[in-house]
Amino acid sequence: MSLFDIFKKKKSKDVAKDRLMMMLAYERANTKIENLEEMKKELIDVVKKYLHVKDVVIKTNSNQDIETLEVEIILDK
Amino acid sequence: MSLFDIFKKKKSKDVAKDRLMMMLAYERANTKIENLEEMKKELIDVVKKYLHVKDVVIKTNSNQDIETLEVEIILDK
Repeated sequence: MSLFDIFKKKKSKDVAKDRLMMMLAYERANTKIENLEEMKKELIDVVKKYLHVKDVVIKTNSNQDIETLEVEIILDK
Repeated sequence: MSLFDIFKKKKSKDVAKDRLMMMLAYERANTKIENLEEMKKELIDVVKKYLHVKDVVIKTNSNQDIETLEVEIILDK
């Protein structure tokens, strides 16, 4: 499964207004990310600094090859 | 065009090893991001803090509805 097959699975019904999607994807075997949890938190903190964030939904997905992190940032208008 | 149609266009040949993909996507009409340039820079700075980054390739794409920012982070092993 390639990196972008992950995104192909998404349906347009998942896309709503007033939100920002942030995605990270990498091949697990070739990319070791130490302190991944802290990096995720810092990335979300940057977005929160620039936007009025109402809610953040984090989904992680792992298969044998690819690790994805999908952050759905719901904006407060 | 939905947010994820953008990603569907990607071919697996675009996916190489030793890199991390970061994507941001939002509906232009509903999401105003002030200081987007600074936010992008800070997001990349966070990744650089946690990973040994060799090169960063930034691609932006705009159509009538969706604005995407794709950051390809090539890792130094």
